[in-house]
Amino acid sequence: MQKPSIPKGTRDFSPDQLIRRNYIFDIIKSKFKKFGFLPIETPSIENLSTLTGKYGSEGDQLLFKVLLRGEKFKKALKNSNENSTDHDFSLEALRYDLTVPFARYIVQHLNDLTFPFKRYQIQPVWRADRPQKGRYREFYQCDADIVGTNSLICEIELVSLITEILNELNLSDFTIMINNRKILYGLVETCNSIEYFSKITAIIDKIDKIGQNKVIEELKNNIPNQSCWELFNELFSLDNSTQIILSWLSKKLASNQEGLKGLQELNYIVDNAEELGINNLKINISLARGLDYYTGSIFEVILNNHSMGSIVGGGRYDNLTEVFGQSNLSGVGISFGAERIFDLMNEFSLFPSNLGISPKYMIIDQSDKPSNGLQVLKYLRDKDVSAILYPDRHKLKKQLKYANSVKIPYIVFIKDSFNSKMNIELKNMESGLQVNTDISNLN
Amino acid sequence: MQKPSIPKGTRDFSPDQLIRRNYIFDIIKSKFKKFGFLPIETPSIENLSTLTGKYGSEGDQLLFKVLLRGEKFKKALKNSNENSTDHDFSLEALRYDLTVPFARYIVQHLNDLTFPFKRYQIQPVWRADRPQKGRYREFYQCDADIVGTNSLICEIELVSLITEILNELNLSDFTIMINNRKILYGLVETCNSIEYFSKITAIIDKIDKIGQNKVIEELKNNIPNQSCWELFNELFSLDNSTQIILSWLSKKLASNQEGLKGLQELNYIVDNAEELGINNLKINISLARGLDYYTGSIFEVILNNHSMGSIVGGGRYDNLTEVFGQSNLSGVGISFGAERIFDLMNEFSLFPSNLGISPKYMIIDQSDKPSNGLQVLKYLRDKDVSAILYPDRHKLKKQLKYANSVKIPYIVFIKDSFNSKMNIELKNMESGLQVNTDISNLN
Repeated sequence: MQKPSIPKGTRDFSPDQLIRRNYIFDIIKSKFKKFGFLPIETPSIENLSTLTGKYGSEGDQLLFKVLLRGEKFKKALKNSNENSTDHDFSLEALRYDLTVPFARYIVQHLNDLTFPFKRYQIQPVWRADRPQKGRYREFYQCDADIVGTNSLICEIELVSLITEILNELNLSDFTIMINNRKILYGLVETCNSIEYFSKITAIIDKIDKIGQNKVIEELKNNIPNQSCWELFNELFSLDNSTQIILSWLSKKLASNQEGLKGLQELNYIVDNAEELGINNLKINISLARGLDYYTGSIFEVILNNHSMGSIVGGGRYDNLTEVFGQSNLSGVGISFGAERIFDLMNEFSLFPSNLGISPKYMIIDQSDKPSNGLQVLKYLRDKDVSAILYPDRHKLKKQLKYANSVKIPYIVFIKDSFNSKMNIELKNMESGLQVNTDISNLN
Repeated sequence: MQKPSIPKGTRDFSPDQLIRRNYIFDIIKSKFKKFGFLPIETPSIENLSTLTGKYGSEGDQLLFKVLLRGEKFKKALKNSNENSTDHDFSLEALRYDLTVPFARYIVQHLNDLTFPFKRYQIQPVWRADRPQKGRYREFYQCDADIVGTNSLICEIELVSLITEILNELNLSDFTIMINNRKILYGLVETCNSIEYFSKITAIIDKIDKIGQNKVIEELKNNIPNQSCWELFNELFSLDNSTQIILSWLSKKLASNQEGLKGLQELNYIVDNAEELGINNLKINISLARGLDYYTGSIFEVILNNHSMGSIVGGGRYDNLTEVFGQSNLSGVGISFGAERIFDLMNEFSLFPSNLGISPKYMIIDQSDKPSNGLQVLKYLRDKDVSAILYPDRHKLKKQLKYANSVKIPYIVFIKDSFNSKMNIELKNMESGLQVNTDISNLN
């Protein structure tokens, strides 16, 4: 018989791993709550029409589609021909992210919501991407969004939230890179290339990966507008000083309303964050974020001494719910890359050492009355103490080996003498010390 | 534009609902942990070969299958003919329960496990059942199992666990029905009908739904063996007294080894549970459980004053992992019907009233310095106090309405005087009282 396996890109989580994952999720969740975000959950399966067309054609290819069943499948098969696609065999798919389902949720429940609506959502998503190190086909996203206000206080809130969470995770050496899509829009407008805006942002967003020269080369090859690549070449050649960049932008965008607005927003956020003691914001004008729905502030967080890419990303979107029929709902959100954080903390052993959730006591019943073990167990649990009873009368060595393997700190031995005196022997598994005592001393 | 929707049988959970669901899950989880169960998680998507053939042909029909992608889809389409089935278009499916993936997990990770292995698992499962009240296509299961020992102490542990959890949920008026499949096996053996064992157990399991007469009628119609239906008719006609039923069984099974063993096991569990103060176990010989993998003790828990069916079920299985190539691993487990419990507690308003997780304070900044609100917010959060800042300078009435809608207990007003004196006005939203105070008094 073949040894069973799981689909590629998916994972089993054993207790050791899951306890670590939950450590991360619990910290994120508790901070989300502290900042006033409320939890929602949406179904794993969405109507295909909700998801398609939202992630670009590449994203559409990566959807896990649910196969039609029963008569619907038969009908689809009957109607199929060589040009049929997988869309003809499916009406539903697994969610690809939490953002589109959230936009769908807002519009569907609009009448029940009070704005500004602050929601968090921690659930798995599925993408049929080619699996590789750090990239899975089923993985968790941890999103927090504030929808229904365009106040920049929300951006500052999110920056504070990021800071609190990463500090709590002991990942405090990080940089929050920030930009504003309005600045990019303004720059592209000043060089009369607005019809190439998406293309340009996609190219300059790659600067960290391919470097400045390649970016300029790609701009030359793809944007038929010399002033455009000259402008960005000038920008990238500036000294890496925030003051120099900001003053260059002020000049270039002096007569561009949108760009100036972006610059103002950026300054407001950075200034106020600094007043709150958050000094690790860094303006990065080449930060563009892949997703086209961002319209204002954009963020990415990197760890300073790791080359693993961003561990948090987010931004402001003015029209996210428009595709579901609701316009004029500005929002801003961030998403924690919990899987990357998990992999990193595993790799560098950054988890606290005391994360175990082993019971404190394991009872080894060596008395002649089978119910003694159960009675001691009940006694301890009634005191809300976590304990287990080794269920079989195996050899002592085997029982102790088991206790070691599940990291039990104390063994409670029940001997025949228990029947009259209620006393037990207590063994400290770390020191090996063993003492006679009364069960009332256990707690 | 069409208002967006979600697939039938699935649900969005708004904050109010999710907080209640999490209340149930948190209690179950904390008790699982207290009893020494360790968490695992398995992927939502399993290989189709792992799942098919495990749930009967009806179950196979209810699997959510994942459609093949890309070239594999094209190839399947090309090779298809009118007799093709959905199996030809799928290699993976969403898990149907947590038990089969757990069996797969055990065999796959056999070398890493120490037995007895106590695991709990709380994750969603998917079934393309016809949706109806209380039946969903995506729903959570909460399972706890002990694998690798046949000690009856495990059964007593699970009975204790059920009792602690239901008491904690304030559902303390319940009955744990218990039976043993060996008794049923013995009875069927004594009337020489063992080849119809599955059929007979499936029929008598329906007695609560269709009544004694219909059960006997179905036995008559389906089992060509008069002594069989006579035997069960005799059993069902006994006085509903545990003593009478047990003495009847002792006689009938006197020369049947398997049956007597089942009877012994049953008595051992009931006696020991009673010694622990658990008096609501009730022997129910017609309890059979639908699933064929049970081989020993079986349980079902019902609430005494609700006709909603069982809210917990479980039993012992000796050969669960055999289908994946590993025999001789006896285990016993229970599954909490969290969705039924959730629906019931919602319907009868059984949730505690203080489940809200609203922030304690909402700041309304009416001062002339925009950063004052952020400073007070930071001050409170640094003291680990949950607070929010209304992000816009809307009319007071609108801001207070918002605070009411998210159930904020206190409003912190920042006035111009804050700048020099750091004092604020505090409004108790319930009493309406408003006082002048210093921010250092907030906690």
